[in-house]
Amino acid sequence: METKQLVTKSVIDAWTSRVDAANKIFNSLSDEDLQKEVSPGRNRGIYLLGHLAGVHDKMLPLLNFGPQLYPHIEETFLNKPDRAVSEILSAKELRAIWDAVNSKLASHFNSLTPDEWFHRHTSVSEADFAKEPHRNRLNVVIGRISHMQYHMGQVALIKK
Amino acid sequence: METKQLVTKSVIDAWTSRVDAANKIFNSLSDEDLQKEVSPGRNRGIYLLGHLAGVHDKMLPLLNFGPQLYPHIEETFLNKPDRAVSEILSAKELRAIWDAVNSKLASHFNSLTPDEWFHRHTSVSEADFAKEPHRNRLNVVIGRISHMQYHMGQVALIKK
Repeated sequence: METKQLVTKSVIDAWTSRVDAANKIFNSLSDEDLQKEVSPGRNRGIYLLGHLAGVHDKMLPLLNFGPQLYPHIEETFLNKPDRAVSEILSAKELRAIWDAVNSKLASHFNSLTPDEWFHRHTSVSEADFAKEPHRNRLNVVIGRISHMQYHMGQVALIKK
Repeated sequence: METKQLVTKSVIDAWTSRVDAANKIFNSLSDEDLQKEVSPGRNRGIYLLGHLAGVHDKMLPLLNFGPQLYPHIEETFLNKPDRAVSEILSAKELRAIWDAVNSKLASHFNSLTPDEWFHRHTSVSEADFAKEPHRNRLNVVIGRISHMQYHMGQVALIKK
């Protein structure tokens, strides 16, 4: 197997398995469970679901796959802390957004060639990319796996 | 930059930045803080410190860098849940073990050539590796970043 293909497989497999594990955790929690805080005084499950959905949605433009699908969730779940906005989307709505965003990403992931994974992401200029060629799409996914895991370790604490 | 070198840089940079972030969190917590649970009825910080140190220590043989440095911590922090063992190492001792293990890993990481990152890890046979060549050292590190992040999101909840 060629190196680019090999590495792409490692990273995409890791992404897919972590999204699957996150879905398992979210599916094990009822809508009422998601209203609970991960630890006293900390974020609620529903906020972290919205936060992760928003961060994954922003991967679409970052990876040059097209515009965000749900730009309206950014203000509540990315720019502001939990409870800063009193009226938020329901757990049902956020679960649907989370699934739609991850499906959209998966379909783009599956259609990229190994070479295309090594193209620059959109927040690095061509000039900077020439000097720092590791700032490619694959690197974005590695970073977002880390981010997802950090918060899923927290969401998992809700389940007793 | 050659592909193997490029990808190795992405993964090792991600590892290093997450270990640094973990150190920042652990250093912000006093030994008393580490006695606290990340959420009521859940693991204590000190257990997660020992757990992460033990998992990272086992990366040494897994990556073919040599034997574990602290095999005696495995029983308490990997095989058993928190509080199953009443007498455990002190926070001071575990902090030193955590630092020593990560330093050892870093020195091995820095001495591998990009090619060597694509060699098989020791829990996959040569025959299986021929069929599944993505099961290399780099893949192990990608998995362990995920694991560290999952628990560091929890440890971070201790700090108020």
